[in-house]
Amino acid sequence: MYPSSALKILRPLSEARRACVQAPKPLVLVPTMGALHAGHTALLERARQLAGPSGTVVASIFVNPTQFGPKEDLATYPRPFEQDAVLCETHGVDLLFAPAPEDMYPEGFSTWVNEESVSLGLCGGTRPGHFRGVCTVVLKLLQICQPTHAVFGKKDFQQCAVIARMVRDLDVPVELVFAETVREPDGLALSSRNTYLNAEERLQAPALYAALQAAREAVAQGERSAKVLQTTIANQMSACSLARTDYIALVDSQTLRPVEVVTPGCTAALAVFFGKTRLIDNLSITA
Amino acid sequence: MYPSSALKILRPLSEARRACVQAPKPLVLVPTMGALHAGHTALLERARQLAGPSGTVVASIFVNPTQFGPKEDLATYPRPFEQDAVLCETHGVDLLFAPAPEDMYPEGFSTWVNEESVSLGLCGGTRPGHFRGVCTVVLKLLQICQPTHAVFGKKDFQQCAVIARMVRDLDVPVELVFAETVREPDGLALSSRNTYLNAEERLQAPALYAALQAAREAVAQGERSAKVLQTTIANQMSACSLARTDYIALVDSQTLRPVEVVTPGCTAALAVFFGKTRLIDNLSITA
Repeated sequence: MYPSSALKILRPLSEARRACVQAPKPLVLVPTMGALHAGHTALLERARQLAGPSGTVVASIFVNPTQFGPKEDLATYPRPFEQDAVLCETHGVDLLFAPAPEDMYPEGFSTWVNEESVSLGLCGGTRPGHFRGVCTVVLKLLQICQPTHAVFGKKDFQQCAVIARMVRDLDVPVELVFAETVREPDGLALSSRNTYLNAEERLQAPALYAALQAAREAVAQGERSAKVLQTTIANQMSACSLARTDYIALVDSQTLRPVEVVTPGCTAALAVFFGKTRLIDNLSITA
Repeated sequence: MYPSSALKILRPLSEARRACVQAPKPLVLVPTMGALHAGHTALLERARQLAGPSGTVVASIFVNPTQFGPKEDLATYPRPFEQDAVLCETHGVDLLFAPAPEDMYPEGFSTWVNEESVSLGLCGGTRPGHFRGVCTVVLKLLQICQPTHAVFGKKDFQQCAVIARMVRDLDVPVELVFAETVREPDGLALSSRNTYLNAEERLQAPALYAALQAAREAVAQGERSAKVLQTTIANQMSACSLARTDYIALVDSQTLRPVEVVTPGCTAALAVFFGKTRLIDNLSITA
């Protein structure tokens, strides 16, 4: 049923902790919610590189309930575990940590990690409590596995910034690595939620990246006004009949504070609904 | 100026981290705010026992600004560092970590650890934000030093319960040890804040422990009503002309939820003001 090979699947927290403590270092953690796609496998391969042939790659698969809002897709989020395990194995994972929700959040659970600045706008504005759930579960995974490195995908741009801030503020002894977004040939950023799109929505979805690229191109041509660039992105999106824009933001890449004038280290980010499906994307526009 | 011997004083976080990582294990941490008294030195000696002759004891001295309320005694809290360093040395401390506030809370610090159940009543009710500061700084110290054990004093009963919950919830890889309260011959629990008391207040201060003992005695005699026991404590305290009671509580020792009927595992706790000085004490009444 599961790949019977080198991949070790760990369920109880204590088992994962023990395996990670005993595993050869570097120990590189790739936290995921499963439903692995080529974006994830790129993270796994990056992790394998960082770990080297004698180190250890640990992937976690946990659909973290505390980062979903009450009206979000926790129940329907895809959980193709066996397929995920095969992908882990074929991409060099040594340990696959897949805890049960009731073990991660035992009775009486009452401690939360709140990042209160970087997490406020953008997705944090639309999804109250989301980053509290993210910070809490990521800190837990870092405590359980105690990795030397942890790899996250830049597609979740705000998540990367929030986790970087948390790790700095709480002095967590881990090196963070942020890996480039993997895209479909038409530019759509890979996401487990892309499977929710119907055919027509899927056809329009590359507009997010196209709009970000248009903003980047405008910056390359000399545009510096965040307001103008937001309009550039908004105009591109308005051509998408099925898209409803959640936010379009031009922000400092570290603090995520909105900028008025684009200077080096700025990122354009947007979130768009296609029906109930919410897609996000971002692009460094001054690189 | 400082003891020139085996005690190593560490200021920068990176230095403390490096020294702790390299130090022989077990590594036992005793977090303090300095102004060390015999209660603290008992913790240091307990730590020395736990570390054994070949392990390492690290004490931290940090008057953590984030656990003080705006009207509390942060500015006046005693900071006799040289004396503290001598006490550390004579009580077997190997590493003394004394960070600067601006290094612990760098610009843009924005991540907080909130325990949202055990921390709510008792001192948490009177001191909003106190346990947020405590949890955050303790988690930071645990991340910087990565000790195998950490020792706290039971005088801060709610603090012990909150930290235990935090460590469990966030899966922090440390073994917590809670050491018995050390008392003056007349029963007053040792506290750095006892020095704030004037002579008359100091004479009345043993009433806290006497009242708790009266409650314990009543339980030993068969009393089970929390309400009656609270009255027992309140009556004892009302004989203290200078005392203003903040709270008197009978709670479950783990969850800190108030009990109505005393069953095994209950603690009586109280907080009392003498002028601006706030004293706390607690006693397991069913032991």
